[in-house]
Amino acid sequence: MENRSVSEDDVLAQYRTPVDAAIRATFDARGDLPLYGMLQYFMGYIDETLRPATGVAGKRIRSSLLLLIADLFGGAPSALDLAVAVELFHNFTLIHDDIEDNDVERRGRPTVWKLWGVNHGINAGDAQAFITTQHLLKAAAVDPASARASLELTDHFLQVVEGQYLDFELADKPLTHPNVTVDAYLEMIRKKTSVLIGTAVAAGGVAAGCDAKVRDLLFAYGESFGMAYQIADDMSSIWGSVEETGKQAYGDIVERKKTYPILYVRDHTNEPRLVELYSSAAPLSDNDIQEVVAGFDRAGACEATKALGRTYVTQAHEAAQSLPLPQQSIALLTGLVDSLVRFPPYTHAAD
Amino acid sequence: MENRSVSEDDVLAQYRTPVDAAIRATFDARGDLPLYGMLQYFMGYIDETLRPATGVAGKRIRSSLLLLIADLFGGAPSALDLAVAVELFHNFTLIHDDIEDNDVERRGRPTVWKLWGVNHGINAGDAQAFITTQHLLKAAAVDPASARASLELTDHFLQVVEGQYLDFELADKPLTHPNVTVDAYLEMIRKKTSVLIGTAVAAGGVAAGCDAKVRDLLFAYGESFGMAYQIADDMSSIWGSVEETGKQAYGDIVERKKTYPILYVRDHTNEPRLVELYSSAAPLSDNDIQEVVAGFDRAGACEATKALGRTYVTQAHEAAQSLPLPQQSIALLTGLVDSLVRFPPYTHAAD
Repeated sequence: MENRSVSEDDVLAQYRTPVDAAIRATFDARGDLPLYGMLQYFMGYIDETLRPATGVAGKRIRSSLLLLIADLFGGAPSALDLAVAVELFHNFTLIHDDIEDNDVERRGRPTVWKLWGVNHGINAGDAQAFITTQHLLKAAAVDPASARASLELTDHFLQVVEGQYLDFELADKPLTHPNVTVDAYLEMIRKKTSVLIGTAVAAGGVAAGCDAKVRDLLFAYGESFGMAYQIADDMSSIWGSVEETGKQAYGDIVERKKTYPILYVRDHTNEPRLVELYSSAAPLSDNDIQEVVAGFDRAGACEATKALGRTYVTQAHEAAQSLPLPQQSIALLTGLVDSLVRFPPYTHAAD
Repeated sequence: MENRSVSEDDVLAQYRTPVDAAIRATFDARGDLPLYGMLQYFMGYIDETLRPATGVAGKRIRSSLLLLIADLFGGAPSALDLAVAVELFHNFTLIHDDIEDNDVERRGRPTVWKLWGVNHGINAGDAQAFITTQHLLKAAAVDPASARASLELTDHFLQVVEGQYLDFELADKPLTHPNVTVDAYLEMIRKKTSVLIGTAVAAGGVAAGCDAKVRDLLFAYGESFGMAYQIADDMSSIWGSVEETGKQAYGDIVERKKTYPILYVRDHTNEPRLVELYSSAAPLSDNDIQEVVAGFDRAGACEATKALGRTYVTQAHEAAQSLPLPQQSIALLTGLVDSLVRFPPYTHAAD
């Protein structure tokens, strides 16, 4: 399942170019206020001195999926604006998340607030939110199907913000709190991550004129994809290297995030020392972190979390297989899940 | 000019009720997540324990003006959604501004971040931003004129965020920096405050089917109104009491904001001690603050600032007088400026 298919990645990659071109154009249209330089920096178009950069930061998965699905269902003239809206929204949440999580690095580069301060981080994110809105309005003006897609996206964007609220709630409670449950964790990642991928996929279909049944299958595909993707991402914070993730090593352990591995250990094994380490307020030493990782491995948390993630991979496959599409397109969609959701042990660096 | 006309305030007040009813309904529709309780708190519908409150926080000037103008030009079915969008956007900026300015109180009540922390403050604001977007999309779906109004509002919302960026830039520079000029201050308040009032007024007309010439006059009326309003607001931070402003006493002096009075003193009088106090980094003592206020008064900064504000009052009057409206409606619009823009000495508390 972790074998990476070059062809599927290539299919998605071909959509990144128009998305990035459209985002660059929308920033350029706002003029040269450094405020927009911060946003261009975060997207990877320029470096921290606001000079052109060679690469692009981020994989543009959500927007590329939206464009792919729209194409698979015959195309939609509003698809690019919807895709830009989804990508800008996603990155807007990351700019603010980095402040909220006190993260100094993302995609191997300093975060916006780290470079320019919290105030500029909040404000630059706010600008991106309303550039997002501009693209939603442009898409909505195209036809009634696109207007429906824009409204649906916005409703789900709000669920992402709700997911961030649930994340705070989970983070603020001790590990032994009765409301810190696997269900609460799953609901949090569903809203924070999966709903956005679900709505991106569904919007591509809705804008292309899909009926409600197909829209629901598309949403289910994207949502399950997103659940698997987030669970795999949580695993990479524990079992991946900095080179693979571009994030702080063991960041989720340092912040004592209640992701599935620690909940599994708490509920299914007897590791009082781990529960104690997660319940204390003192900063975790490097030794503590190694102790946590060793405890996870001893308890079989890696295998258990992988098994959970794989149930969502299977659900995503099943939703894709029910879609009224040629077998080749279905294989592409299932292959994309397998390609993008990577569980340990890792055989190559993430891009 | 400072004589308050009861009838004009009453005209505006009648529009507050539908705006607040619609905002309450939109929050209610999102369910009972405490995230939305924070937003209801900020609007004044509930208190900090999330129980119903008796009053409403804020005057709803922007949304009421939008509804009034739409009515004066024959009405627009999208006007309420546009008005709600403007009001939600305005309050969204305040929730984030309070974090950025480290303000613990607004409208005589603790700010959102003060009660629930910075992370919730950022995130609750983000939710309000996308509820704003929902109303823009709903309005845009009504007819082409409303779609134009929604797009125009969004473009100007971005200018407000740009204004906040300019505010940071001005605040970060010393008083003696060559870029700290009256023009820079005026451009900052134009984007941060005036453009929003201008676009609210214009949107009411655009949605009601006004042509471009009338739209421009409406924008000019609102923009000049906004300039006068902000200059008067800046004055109230120096010459108003806490009871009148609901804000921290002498907040702008404490934060050494480069508003017009200190720029006037720097450019037109010889008060080296004031320039020195504004150039130091040490917190200002109560004595320092009294010294600043005494210096302002000695230098005639109050009269000079009032004169500046009055030029914008005059411009707003002139724009209103050019509108194709009955004389009674024009008198209402000019009277509203006189009623809402109040310069010292103050004869009664602000509402």
